[in-house]
Amino acid sequence: MQFNKQLEKIKTYEPGLPIEEVVREFGIDPSDIIKLASNENPFGCSPKASEAVAQSAHLMYRYPDDTMGELKGKLAQKFGVGTQNLIIGSGSDQIIEFLIHAKAETKILINEITFAMYAIYAATKGVEVIRTRGMEHDLEQFYELYKSENPDVIFLCTPNNPTGDALRRDEVYRFLEKIDSDTMVVLDGAYQEYTAFKDGDYAIDAKDITKRFPNVIYLGTFSKAYGLGGMRVGYGVASEEIIGALYKLRPPFNVTTLSLVAASAALEDEKFVTDAIEKNFEYMKEYETFAKEHDGIEYVESYTNFITYLFEKSDSSEIAQKLLKQGIIVRDLKGYNLNAIRTTIGTREQNQRFLNALENLLGS
Amino acid sequence: MQFNKQLEKIKTYEPGLPIEEVVREFGIDPSDIIKLASNENPFGCSPKASEAVAQSAHLMYRYPDDTMGELKGKLAQKFGVGTQNLIIGSGSDQIIEFLIHAKAETKILINEITFAMYAIYAATKGVEVIRTRGMEHDLEQFYELYKSENPDVIFLCTPNNPTGDALRRDEVYRFLEKIDSDTMVVLDGAYQEYTAFKDGDYAIDAKDITKRFPNVIYLGTFSKAYGLGGMRVGYGVASEEIIGALYKLRPPFNVTTLSLVAASAALEDEKFVTDAIEKNFEYMKEYETFAKEHDGIEYVESYTNFITYLFEKSDSSEIAQKLLKQGIIVRDLKGYNLNAIRTTIGTREQNQRFLNALENLLGS
Repeated sequence: MQFNKQLEKIKTYEPGLPIEEVVREFGIDPSDIIKLASNENPFGCSPKASEAVAQSAHLMYRYPDDTMGELKGKLAQKFGVGTQNLIIGSGSDQIIEFLIHAKAETKILINEITFAMYAIYAATKGVEVIRTRGMEHDLEQFYELYKSENPDVIFLCTPNNPTGDALRRDEVYRFLEKIDSDTMVVLDGAYQEYTAFKDGDYAIDAKDITKRFPNVIYLGTFSKAYGLGGMRVGYGVASEEIIGALYKLRPPFNVTTLSLVAASAALEDEKFVTDAIEKNFEYMKEYETFAKEHDGIEYVESYTNFITYLFEKSDSSEIAQKLLKQGIIVRDLKGYNLNAIRTTIGTREQNQRFLNALENLLGS
Repeated sequence: MQFNKQLEKIKTYEPGLPIEEVVREFGIDPSDIIKLASNENPFGCSPKASEAVAQSAHLMYRYPDDTMGELKGKLAQKFGVGTQNLIIGSGSDQIIEFLIHAKAETKILINEITFAMYAIYAATKGVEVIRTRGMEHDLEQFYELYKSENPDVIFLCTPNNPTGDALRRDEVYRFLEKIDSDTMVVLDGAYQEYTAFKDGDYAIDAKDITKRFPNVIYLGTFSKAYGLGGMRVGYGVASEEIIGALYKLRPPFNVTTLSLVAASAALEDEKFVTDAIEKNFEYMKEYETFAKEHDGIEYVESYTNFITYLFEKSDSSEIAQKLLKQGIIVRDLKGYNLNAIRTTIGTREQNQRFLNALENLLGS
């Protein structure tokens, strides 16, 4: 059977290995496996969220409230925007899909090393991907390429995944002011809760962005700080015009009944989120100290719940594979052209196990 | 801001009103509302599924097992196919989206009155929709249009939604044998569990279809008989070639962690499903009797968990609106060019309330 030509160009996204697969492949006891590959919240989710879900489990037969009225109301209040400025997706990934289909016609502009889904959705749509050069976002390069290539959509991932560095807010604003109103700019803030906690100068205010720049969309998610990675809830905050266009591409019931329950309940427990973030940055210091104490490891200062180790003397794929055989799942970044691994900051025990294992591997 | 031209043609799907919206709009107490508009399983879901979900609620922080190994294994066993013959989507809607994007280039062929999402996804892709004439699937018309229009994809919805009639298996096979191997045929069996129970001659065997017709895909769902409409789990069964192509379009983590848990557990409780289907057809007799006893109501013989009343003397939109004000939500089919309403067969109490209310409306 002949399929549409675009399929030939599509590369499938490689997610972090699930624990289930490591169990199957290496025969390791599930309780011995630690997964630091997908930047899940190592402290789980708010007990309020899991209780709400357990109590609503019998309602799974019912289609979701497709207006998403309750969750939208709470998000609108959180961000100080109207519900007409919000769209909720099956993860913020789905919002990325919508906006590429709504706006990208010929080209998108992204950082050389950044979240893989931008390019994957562009390929699905048959759209060319223009990239800057270098690991961190360089807004001067972005501006040059904007002028010369005239992309339909520009993605700024701040903090950036998989590297962890972030852009200062004033730098972002100066950039946005130079972009014409018919070019869409996406501020992907999947880890912004961490960034805002670490340094207010790097925090992006979705309300202010929406008010000042009708061509900009801010993306957020419940998958990271809110600890609901498995439930697929992300959102976009933007002008009514952008939201209206994206809504046309939203399939009905794109967020499950229990995902809506979980996200709404999670918003009622900001203390859980703040505690998790506080511990994250406390524990991250151990990773920084480790890197400083070991020759041949550089790290990127991180505004997220993960840290990227760049290796000068070792091969990242070998390290990742050896860790995997010990039941420690991290993300090898060789596929991003970096000799590096990305590790989620885990619980204290997980971090200790990872750092001990790495110490042994480097010593051997 | 200019958006892509295709957006102009997109009509948004109108889902059945959620209970939450009727509460907001008419101020009716939620406990007084009955929803017979979305063909949810009125008996809920298997207690085994809700217990499994309640016990796994604390795992929401973890991304789904994206191999979906457990659920695929169980489905493979159920259908007697290999896991490479299966793709799981966020509802079977999402499989429809994938296959239109993978295969439809210029035209699809569908029944005049059928599930709305086929045409909606075609519009997203800028593909023309060819329709037969008439309420029920007429395979001779389908064949004529296949020859003259050369569509890329043909959809047979059996049993058909929103009318409830089904195609005999031998009739389907005779049709499939005449279709060339480069045209994809979709057998949408969202309600096939009901059909197979009612009359084996109308049942579609996904394994046999897959073996004999490498150009055909069978679609099934957990949203109806399995009572998991809120969790968005559907699947496609087809040749490895078709599944491989669709997989390229599948976004990672398209089914939530708890949806996978729920569907896997639901498959362990076939008794719940059979009991629900048995009651469905028992209660449906009351609807048939009601129609026979009232002048001006015709009904379509249904192989599903809903029934369609065609009105000769009344206006379906008026009836639906008057029922709504009493807290009874049904589906007006005026948008499908039918002066009819579609009603889910509910619990005994719900059916009684609906039929009493309709009796009063017709009498007045």
